[in-house]
Amino acid sequence: MKALVYGEALRLAGDYPRPEPGPGEALVRVDLAGICNTDLEIMRGYMGFRGVLGHEFVGVVEAAGDAAWLGRRVVGEINCACGHCATCRAGRPTHCPNRTTVGIDRHDGAFAEYVRLPLANLHAVPPGVSDRQAVFAEPLAAALEIPEQAHIRPTERVAVVGDGKLGLLVAQVLALLGVELTAIGRHEDKLAILRRRGVAACLEGDVPSALERACDVVVDCTGKAEGFALARRLVRPRGRLVLKSTFHGKNEVDLTGAVVDEVALLGSRCGPFAPALRLLERGLVDVESLVDSEYVLDDGLRAFERAATRGALKVLVRP
Amino acid sequence: MKALVYGEALRLAGDYPRPEPGPGEALVRVDLAGICNTDLEIMRGYMGFRGVLGHEFVGVVEAAGDAAWLGRRVVGEINCACGHCATCRAGRPTHCPNRTTVGIDRHDGAFAEYVRLPLANLHAVPPGVSDRQAVFAEPLAAALEIPEQAHIRPTERVAVVGDGKLGLLVAQVLALLGVELTAIGRHEDKLAILRRRGVAACLEGDVPSALERACDVVVDCTGKAEGFALARRLVRPRGRLVLKSTFHGKNEVDLTGAVVDEVALLGSRCGPFAPALRLLERGLVDVESLVDSEYVLDDGLRAFERAATRGALKVLVRP
Repeated sequence: MKALVYGEALRLAGDYPRPEPGPGEALVRVDLAGICNTDLEIMRGYMGFRGVLGHEFVGVVEAAGDAAWLGRRVVGEINCACGHCATCRAGRPTHCPNRTTVGIDRHDGAFAEYVRLPLANLHAVPPGVSDRQAVFAEPLAAALEIPEQAHIRPTERVAVVGDGKLGLLVAQVLALLGVELTAIGRHEDKLAILRRRGVAACLEGDVPSALERACDVVVDCTGKAEGFALARRLVRPRGRLVLKSTFHGKNEVDLTGAVVDEVALLGSRCGPFAPALRLLERGLVDVESLVDSEYVLDDGLRAFERAATRGALKVLVRP
Repeated sequence: MKALVYGEALRLAGDYPRPEPGPGEALVRVDLAGICNTDLEIMRGYMGFRGVLGHEFVGVVEAAGDAAWLGRRVVGEINCACGHCATCRAGRPTHCPNRTTVGIDRHDGAFAEYVRLPLANLHAVPPGVSDRQAVFAEPLAAALEIPEQAHIRPTERVAVVGDGKLGLLVAQVLALLGVELTAIGRHEDKLAILRRRGVAACLEGDVPSALERACDVVVDCTGKAEGFALARRLVRPRGRLVLKSTFHGKNEVDLTGAVVDEVALLGSRCGPFAPALRLLERGLVDVESLVDSEYVLDDGLRAFERAATRGALKVLVRP
């Protein structure tokens, strides 16, 4: 099958072996997949991954041990857990120490005609949710991990730093909570997507001084030292700073200040798919505005070039 | 001034004394007011109140110690706190033991040409929010008190019992959290308002058995013994049961079962106005569909008759 394979570099393979689903697994024909910043980070060395990239996708089940799944349109969670270790039994499968991760860690991903997935990872896509919406289920789930982990009260003042794809999803999810919300970014056109939905948004240079040391919760969606520094400037003493981005390498950050101010730093990664699909079904999150462009798999290398362009939003790949 | 006054019965007064705002207070000319079930409960004896009814309103400030408020369109919180007792200083003014409550407890309400309010209780209404929307700020704030008090996770299974005005607002607010939500009521037409927004809804007789003892959170918006019993049937062991309605008199309920199942019962009353106005401004809650009818103040007694009709939604009164 055709696939976008990362080795020393990214290449389009025409004869990559089609995955063979084991017991308890499904073979999914990929209809649409999205490029995530994590894919670009992998190409900088993150996770040392080798294989087919891609962990945001929607497709149709072509083969499965459980016939109930056959022919269903699905999205899939990306952490493939062992299911029987202490962590899995404690209800934390996304932290299974034996896990592989689709397109990220020892499990071929979705920039291909087919992808293999455990049945336990599948979620049927409701009929009212289009492929272009469903392909956002994975990053939207990641955004939902924030209110899953932390009690964010409707009366609280919240800032989201970073107007990339994930930042725009995080801001939209937090706006639903009724919080006093400010999104902070570098691109007027992206911030405009949020302003259309009644969210206050400003450029990094224009952050109101009233927000300094005044936000109950700040989410850093930049994964950069400057983003962390800005987030630290905004969070109040005893506030919460959510770290939402994964990236390759280390950042030089001031942790002593966080100790002095007794700030809680909260790492946040993969999240729950079911509520993400519910929000899409209820029409509560605008993901269409986040689509930058769509390429066929044969043009996958160009799709990745486009995705690496400064300011690019979600680039989709259709096998 | 004209006012709807409750004494032995409800009567329309033509010459009720216009309220005289003290220092730190405002005189608000009422543009629109809404009838709440609490008003009907007061007429059954709740709180032993005597005076002008009405605690849901929008109006314009005509007099105020602080000139910045003059001419502004406002809604108002209904608990008038002393501001200096230990409860107030601890940040819980809605629980001030010295409080009066607009239209409910020793403070004349808003079914009148004018109402008097502490400046601290005022919230300016954003330009994009209409009077018909703003008049729902108070009950919408009460709905928001639930996620203010409790951490309700996007992955949780939630049921709302009761499809009255408050139940419909509570269900809409909780739907925004992404939770798996079922609304349960007695009126197909009211449940249809929720279904249009992607919320599963069913009649009391049709509750899926899969929900029994399976809901993480259940909100009782009926304030009736049957509603409590249904809510108890649905909440899982160690789940949370939110009591959202105030009413006159006692209910015969089984509390021992709640002890055995270690269910947390959570009383929930007035809530935060600022997030309510933000949700209205962001267009995230449909309140227009909740309007039953609108009467002029001269027809106030007819408005109350209509509000007391079984199945009536929000009846508005325009002075």
